[in-house]
Amino acid sequence: MYADYAATHITKPDCVKDAMIHALSLGNSGRGVNESSLDAARKIYEVRTKVDQFFDGYGPEQVVFTSGITESLNTVIKGYLNKGDHVITTFMEHNSVLRPLYEMEQQGVRLTITSPDVDHIEQAIYEDTKMVVMIQASNVTGEVFDIRSVGKLCKEKGILFVVDTAQSAGVIPISMKEDYIDVLCFTGHKGLLGPQGIGGICIRKGVKIHPLKTGGTGILSFSKTQPEALPQALEAGTLNGIGIAGLGAAIDHINTYGINKIRKQEKNLIETFYKKMKEIKGIKTYHENPLDFTKQTAICSINLEEYDSGSVSDELMERFHIQTRSGAHCAPLVHEHFGTVEQGMVRFSFGHETTIEEINQIIHAVKILAEE
Amino acid sequence: MYADYAATHITKPDCVKDAMIHALSLGNSGRGVNESSLDAARKIYEVRTKVDQFFDGYGPEQVVFTSGITESLNTVIKGYLNKGDHVITTFMEHNSVLRPLYEMEQQGVRLTITSPDVDHIEQAIYEDTKMVVMIQASNVTGEVFDIRSVGKLCKEKGILFVVDTAQSAGVIPISMKEDYIDVLCFTGHKGLLGPQGIGGICIRKGVKIHPLKTGGTGILSFSKTQPEALPQALEAGTLNGIGIAGLGAAIDHINTYGINKIRKQEKNLIETFYKKMKEIKGIKTYHENPLDFTKQTAICSINLEEYDSGSVSDELMERFHIQTRSGAHCAPLVHEHFGTVEQGMVRFSFGHETTIEEINQIIHAVKILAEE
Repeated sequence: MYADYAATHITKPDCVKDAMIHALSLGNSGRGVNESSLDAARKIYEVRTKVDQFFDGYGPEQVVFTSGITESLNTVIKGYLNKGDHVITTFMEHNSVLRPLYEMEQQGVRLTITSPDVDHIEQAIYEDTKMVVMIQASNVTGEVFDIRSVGKLCKEKGILFVVDTAQSAGVIPISMKEDYIDVLCFTGHKGLLGPQGIGGICIRKGVKIHPLKTGGTGILSFSKTQPEALPQALEAGTLNGIGIAGLGAAIDHINTYGINKIRKQEKNLIETFYKKMKEIKGIKTYHENPLDFTKQTAICSINLEEYDSGSVSDELMERFHIQTRSGAHCAPLVHEHFGTVEQGMVRFSFGHETTIEEINQIIHAVKILAEE
Repeated sequence: MYADYAATHITKPDCVKDAMIHALSLGNSGRGVNESSLDAARKIYEVRTKVDQFFDGYGPEQVVFTSGITESLNTVIKGYLNKGDHVITTFMEHNSVLRPLYEMEQQGVRLTITSPDVDHIEQAIYEDTKMVVMIQASNVTGEVFDIRSVGKLCKEKGILFVVDTAQSAGVIPISMKEDYIDVLCFTGHKGLLGPQGIGGICIRKGVKIHPLKTGGTGILSFSKTQPEALPQALEAGTLNGIGIAGLGAAIDHINTYGINKIRKQEKNLIETFYKKMKEIKGIKTYHENPLDFTKQTAICSINLEEYDSGSVSDELMERFHIQTRSGAHCAPLVHEHFGTVEQGMVRFSFGHETTIEEINQIIHAVKILAEE
């Protein structure tokens, strides 16, 4: 039984496979004007449009494809900040945000790490604060943070607001405009139900990001530098046309199925799971804010007394065939915050396809372990 | 009729599709020790081994996966060179080499651009030369350069030798050891017959490259910096497990089919094509060295008198349904060298699946255009 949807969503809609297979025989987008290349380019443009509409963004040409959200975040953080700038982030962040920021710190950027709420972030702002970058939903606790308030604050102060939607895209409705998001980083293989190897960046018009990778773009070949116009500015080299096609089909699926229906199903699942889990003696759950299932993705991290999370996870796997993720989940400061650096946590994460029967089986298994 | 295989190889073996579909339901490699994640990790390790053996490399852990060769080249060039270093490259390079080098020039690296042969490269060496980076087979002329002599020279001088195999991997046998290659950059979707969105770097043991992207690796989460051991050092974020699986199947196919058989077929095709093309009045072909079909991939670039390459390409497409690539092919200095900056060239490129009948049809079409 798979309960590690936060790592990757392993059940993909059939349309994703079909779209990828079809795309395998397309040409190389933007390379020449032959039929195969044009077919590839049309498909990619179509998916840019879908992504843009899905996030209520600033137009298809403002959608840049990357190999995943780690590349998206590296591109934005390293391509926007300069020596002397100040940047704010939160202790809920994943290493895909923290490590690029630590690198920038080495290059003279000042970094403040604070709590994931608008009050703390406001207190951390200096005159030279150039960026606030934060996760929308924690990959450890599943809490959804109030990005809209932070976005509004950033807009008022003229600070670039960058959001990591790794755990929220596809499971929580997001509007770049209503949430005041300047730069939205996403990955395809989690809530968006697409394949691994594709992600992207949606960028408000006028935001200038220096490319991480440079190279061929099929246009302006005689310029020594990358073209300045989006999306080519940040898309050197052959795009992952196959992954892009898969992502497009996945977004179609979500739109047809309904993101609100996904949200409702996941809310029911996690509410049931949490309530039953809390009744088990010896179980500790983790959240920064008081539990509120309207602000919670389908993630619950626990510990069983003082037992090592890895051992609990292994027992769940070996005895009950329940697949979880233990340890630190690439979010070191979350574990420092909750005092679980040594113990780690056992993370359960679900998809909307998870059934109540599966939830009950997991609860049953945890009960057995707790009683032993 | 597709004659743009140098842009992307659009006919993939069926096993590639099957492997990708299978991989779609695997977990996230290196994230947790649950069954799904382990299955993904095993598959990826298996493909690392295949890639390593295919290029006669330095072990599976020395194989790093990227989103494509542009990322590979950016990673190596930007992650190895430092201010004050000297680097040598050739005028045959693609923008995926040139643009990162121009960026490094802005950061105080000295760049020499010379001819793609060992004598010119030797003359360009200074005491502080740290890297020679060159393409093995031109994406414009199809010529295969003598990388072994350059590699041997670099070894003697203690200079890192980096090879761009975008147009050679899968169609010419390559041995990192016999060719003295320190760092081999490859892409999956051309001669290797795999999908777009996957590429990589094979690295000799002991070569230290600073990562372009940092982030989660599933290990050593509490370190503020990326782990130093390969492959994780250069593989932040979720890998493209689906693309990797497809690449593995493609390499299996090449091994079964036989790279020497592919080589022989492509040699016959291009030899026939070239000979017939040269008989057509008004056609100009381009090569740096005298034509030698033992050192030529299945690429031939031409011009018809002074006609714009784009117009010729369009006519071939519209009237004869022949898909070529015109313009500069992201290789600006090649066109400066041959005096074709304005005119561009019409590039024909074939795969081993191309038939003699197709070759004859193309020749026939070009003849008609030439006679008009």
